Amino acid sequence: MVGGGQLARMTHEAGIPLGIKFKLLSDTPQDSAAQVVSEVVIGDYRDLDTLRAFARGCDVITFDHEHVPTEHLRALEADGIPVRPGPAALVHAQDKGVMRAKLDAIGAPCPRHRIVTDPADVARFAAGLAGGAAGPDAGQWPDDGAGGGLPVVLKTVRGGYDGKGVWLVRSSKEAAEPFRAGVPVLAEEKVPFVRELAANVVRSPHGQAVAYPVVESVQVNGVCDTVIAPAPGLSAELSARAQQLALRIADELDVVGHLAVELFEIRDAAGEPAILVNELAMRPHNSGHWTQDGAITSQFANHVRAVLDLPLGDPRPRATWTVMANVLGGDYPDMYAAYLHCMARDPQLKIHMYGKDVKPGRKVGHVNTYGDDLADVRERAAHAAGYLRGTITE
Amino acid sequence: MVGGGQLARMTHEAGIPLGIKFKLLSDTPQDSAAQVVSEVVIGDYRDLDTLRAFARGCDVITFDHEHVPTEHLRALEADGIPVRPGPAALVHAQDKGVMRAKLDAIGAPCPRHRIVTDPADVARFAAGLAGGAAGPDAGQWPDDGAGGGLPVVLKTVRGGYDGKGVWLVRSSKEAAEPFRAGVPVLAEEKVPFVRELAANVVRSPHGQAVAYPVVESVQVNGVCDTVIAPAPGLSAELSARAQQLALRIADELDVVGHLAVELFEIRDAAGEPAILVNELAMRPHNSGHWTQDGAITSQFANHVRAVLDLPLGDPRPRATWTVMANVLGGDYPDMYAAYLHCMARDPQLKIHMYGKDVKPGRKVGHVNTYGDDLADVRERAAHAAGYLRGTITE
Repeated sequence: MVGGGQLARMTHEAGIPLGIKFKLLSDTPQDSAAQVVSEVVIGDYRDLDTLRAFARGCDVITFDHEHVPTEHLRALEADGIPVRPGPAALVHAQDKGVMRAKLDAIGAPCPRHRIVTDPADVARFAAGLAGGAAGPDAGQWPDDGAGGGLPVVLKTVRGGYDGKGVWLVRSSKEAAEPFRAGVPVLAEEKVPFVRELAANVVRSPHGQAVAYPVVESVQVNGVCDTVIAPAPGLSAELSARAQQLALRIADELDVVGHLAVELFEIRDAAGEPAILVNELAMRPHNSGHWTQDGAITSQFANHVRAVLDLPLGDPRPRATWTVMANVLGGDYPDMYAAYLHCMARDPQLKIHMYGKDVKPGRKVGHVNTYGDDLADVRERAAHAAGYLRGTITE
Repeated sequence: MVGGGQLARMTHEAGIPLGIKFKLLSDTPQDSAAQVVSEVVIGDYRDLDTLRAFARGCDVITFDHEHVPTEHLRALEADGIPVRPGPAALVHAQDKGVMRAKLDAIGAPCPRHRIVTDPADVARFAAGLAGGAAGPDAGQWPDDGAGGGLPVVLKTVRGGYDGKGVWLVRSSKEAAEPFRAGVPVLAEEKVPFVRELAANVVRSPHGQAVAYPVVESVQVNGVCDTVIAPAPGLSAELSARAQQLALRIADELDVVGHLAVELFEIRDAAGEPAILVNELAMRPHNSGHWTQDGAITSQFANHVRAVLDLPLGDPRPRATWTVMANVLGGDYPDMYAAYLHCMARDPQLKIHMYGKDVKPGRKVGHVNTYGDDLADVRERAAHAAGYLRGTITE
């Protein structure tokens, strides 16, 4: 696995019972996964020679993140190393422009969007959203930053995650920032969504696929805070539509492994619930962490099985409700002191820490809770995550 | 953790989510746990200098097996290293003579037993079982090896496991063998048991303890083949009595960590179900492997929590029935080829392989299944274990 973050750490954990010999390419020996894996190569995934040396002797390569250059992945494939997901699939999770173009081509519902070239082009895009034709006013920004399709969302097509590389802009000045990186910029309408959902599926090379229950992802400051499985109040019809959409995307893009399809739940013109695709991630994903304790087969176990072209495990839930809450770093560097309180308060609590140094706001772990009473399950998860962070002292 | 076997492997797996930095003392780099742990010291646990060097920098030491010499454990304690379970507790799992004497002292029900000095003494012990007084015939073996309390069970007080170091003897000639090792020999009556049970508990240094449901352990050729959780048909009364006995033993012996109390279920003089203590193990145990997929908190997670003096997790079951079946090595060295069949046949199957080379009869893994229909759950576990071994080809 390329990348030593927590996804690699938890994938290794899931691979141990399968007897998998797991080899890691990590930036440093202190990385989350490097702390717990036997065979670790320290090196830079951006360097092709490093990747090639790492891949020697591997049966298959997979990833903890989407940042390995597409051309390097093609080179590994040319060397005869199976790369899963392959570069032709992974590019859709690496490049938001490629992703949107492909989703348009297969008819997947998306927010309105367009690659934009400069702030004036952003204003034209915004005017278009509002139904304004490209006339004399096109390219002009309103003084108050409202109306005319504003605000709009700008994203660099590569390199963003967890709210980084994403801007909500209302003015020419704000719209200038995203262009500074020299990376193509994608403009998207700001969707008036009801909530965020995620449809997680896993697909294997021979085309078997499984779909997990659709979950609700509650974001705080652009970062996933809580995931509720299954999404409360989601109709069976819309849930099935979301799962089918995710399975179709996995198939059309030839994804191998775990695919997270992040969705906006909106109301359509008739006021009925509908979905739009927000983002794709081709690896185990934060919105699937609940599966470690809440599903028969976790996303990590199924990712390993898919990458090895083994039959996939049952994705069904083991509990009525499972809630995942992310643990962010707080002011106290030693979060382990909080274990005493959290474990004593809730003997059913499942803690998943990543072995990371605590920095304020950094994702350093998550907790899972499950049970029959959603309010109770949510409260337990929120309490534990808050206590570990230090924002709840009780 | 001292010892690189599968128990260490699975303890590491359970420690990863807690952010535990796990260090291993292993005989070879190929050992089951050494394959999956980052920080591995290769060395001989029988050598005190090796143990001392290994223990330096550890917050606490625990064990994958009971073979570390008691005096070495005392030396580590004298060095100020917390050893959990401590030598004063662990000796009861290391020395069957010490164990029986202690269980007698606390009034725990045991098979009748006595340390014996030679084959003639074994015959006297057998005659005593049959109610024969120590008279002229004492020390004489009957020609047919029957009657007079025969056969009896002989065990070397140290060094045995999985049927090794245990003999069922009917004659003077058979009784000579156990004495050849030069280790004290314990004689026990051969109990006409109905079945074998195990009561697993975990206890922490500050005295908190949890009890898992009592399980039935089905032995084949002296080796555990299948574990059924909870033990079918066990009355609530006898189940509670077994749990209370295990908790009392853990407390009286000052056990820290997981304690497996292997039990015989017998019929008492009135024909009522009763229990006798067969063996003790102070570490995660084969009879608790079902907890990985069948309990809220696994024996491995709770062992880690106990050893670190953290509050213990909920031991209750997550399914009506959970069945564990051991996978023994068969004639085919590559058991992974069988994954295709087993995973496709049963998407709910939980496979736990140890990364060991396959040798016929060697424990190389186990499978867990769970559900509401015991017959189905047993069949699925037995099929998978048999198929992985190669004895079922379907």
